[in-house]
Amino acid sequence: MKLMRVGAAGRERPALLDPDGTTWRDLGGLVGDIDAGLLADPAALDRIRTAADAGDLPVLPSQGVRVGPPVARVGKVVCIGLNYHDHAVETGAEPPAEPVLFLKAADTVVGPYDTVLIPRRSEKTDWEVELAVVIGRTARYVADDEDPLSYVAGYAVSHDVSEREFQLERGGTWDKGKNCETFNPLGPWLVTADEVPDPQALRLRLWVNGVLRQNGSTADQIAPVAQIVRYVSRFMTLYPGDVINTGTPAGVALGHPHPQPYLRAGDVVEAEIDGLGRQRQRFQDA
Amino acid sequence: MKLMRVGAAGRERPALLDPDGTTWRDLGGLVGDIDAGLLADPAALDRIRTAADAGDLPVLPSQGVRVGPPVARVGKVVCIGLNYHDHAVETGAEPPAEPVLFLKAADTVVGPYDTVLIPRRSEKTDWEVELAVVIGRTARYVADDEDPLSYVAGYAVSHDVSEREFQLERGGTWDKGKNCETFNPLGPWLVTADEVPDPQALRLRLWVNGVLRQNGSTADQIAPVAQIVRYVSRFMTLYPGDVINTGTPAGVALGHPHPQPYLRAGDVVEAEIDGLGRQRQRFQDA
Repeated sequence: MKLMRVGAAGRERPALLDPDGTTWRDLGGLVGDIDAGLLADPAALDRIRTAADAGDLPVLPSQGVRVGPPVARVGKVVCIGLNYHDHAVETGAEPPAEPVLFLKAADTVVGPYDTVLIPRRSEKTDWEVELAVVIGRTARYVADDEDPLSYVAGYAVSHDVSEREFQLERGGTWDKGKNCETFNPLGPWLVTADEVPDPQALRLRLWVNGVLRQNGSTADQIAPVAQIVRYVSRFMTLYPGDVINTGTPAGVALGHPHPQPYLRAGDVVEAEIDGLGRQRQRFQDA
Repeated sequence: MKLMRVGAAGRERPALLDPDGTTWRDLGGLVGDIDAGLLADPAALDRIRTAADAGDLPVLPSQGVRVGPPVARVGKVVCIGLNYHDHAVETGAEPPAEPVLFLKAADTVVGPYDTVLIPRRSEKTDWEVELAVVIGRTARYVADDEDPLSYVAGYAVSHDVSEREFQLERGGTWDKGKNCETFNPLGPWLVTADEVPDPQALRLRLWVNGVLRQNGSTADQIAPVAQIVRYVSRFMTLYPGDVINTGTPAGVALGHPHPQPYLRAGDVVEAEIDGLGRQRQRFQDA
């Protein structure tokens, strides 16, 4: 299923994308929201499936309606750094011996078509298309004989917008360049895990003003999704509604020769993953 | 005022500590919870003050009742690294040219007397008493002529529990060692800012099994609270209910000569700040 949340920011309504790929179906009569409670409740997800199959879900008008992030009240956003061979090379970093983790504040999550704000004093706002993993069951010290993917509720397109000067040149950890407001567009859909049989076979693409800048595949991930979930669960407990941004392939502005084509007000970024939909953001000055 | 939340985890009730220092007064009839909504609402805080002054608040039995973290649904926890001269020295780090920021997941926040879990495979679980700043107004690009302290709702004792091997020896940023479950005891009280006239004149102390291990003063902070709030607001927007851990003074296990006295199951840590109360946690294996 492709779950969505549509409507004004903070007042989104849960919806389902019809198999026709364009019609929205209203879930407001069936579930409260697409949130931790729903994702952790297989019976509620089954109710949606049954109602959809029976043709019981009313059409929701979509004309002019905003699409919000597909998960309400995201808990935490865990990010994996340098997780594609080609991206590690372009940034001049060694491929890490074990996954690099950092956190992104959940309040940076916005809808897939929302405006993204270039922070004041920013010169190096950069793009990163990523496969987001949305957790459906509490994952704590996932054992070697367990399937880590059984903790995954679904997948979404994530844009891990990054300010490189804040991230790399201002001292300390990367977090200064990752948490500016609006820096994590998510969606358009949360695609349930049953529709993504192999998360390591997804093509990711990102365009800036129509120019293809990233064109990778999750097959190139250094730590695949299953390993990431198990690894992260040793250091922190993952809860339903948490999101993992699993890293970005090559092609970011940071990896270009000078002058690097960092984002400016008016630029338009589109980011797409096979089967997970396409985002589109216009950048504006904060 | 000293605001509290008391009761079983997830079902805490808002309360006020009486000026006698021991009696709890029930706020459940007056406000929903001690959360972002309340902290951003001066009128609601005034209602509490008025009711307290009038003696209108019923006594809440405290015998055997758990104390929760004094803020419900903490948004994000921003931490300042190496923010005391003496702590920077003991860790062998240069005092940073500008504040070091990192994030801690809000789901690590627990009550001040709750058990803290030593992560599996941990050898280097360490303590850090810190002054926590709780935000009361949205702070976004705080201007040079604004008073950053006007964004502060209040202060609390925070324990930024840290696993040093995860933090420093596993590659990447510090976040691996900061986000283990139960790693951020907070409280016992949220002391409103009007009762803390000078946040740079507070003594912090921490004991392990009764031995005084940290004994510092916020006067020794490299970046004082006002500068921290302004600085952070350039990189991320601070919302009501967000918490800033403002760094720890010298005396952590990491700063000791070998063998360093890292925490083990059964150890008891107490942490205290002048006027903000004292925490006490027993450590257990996860």
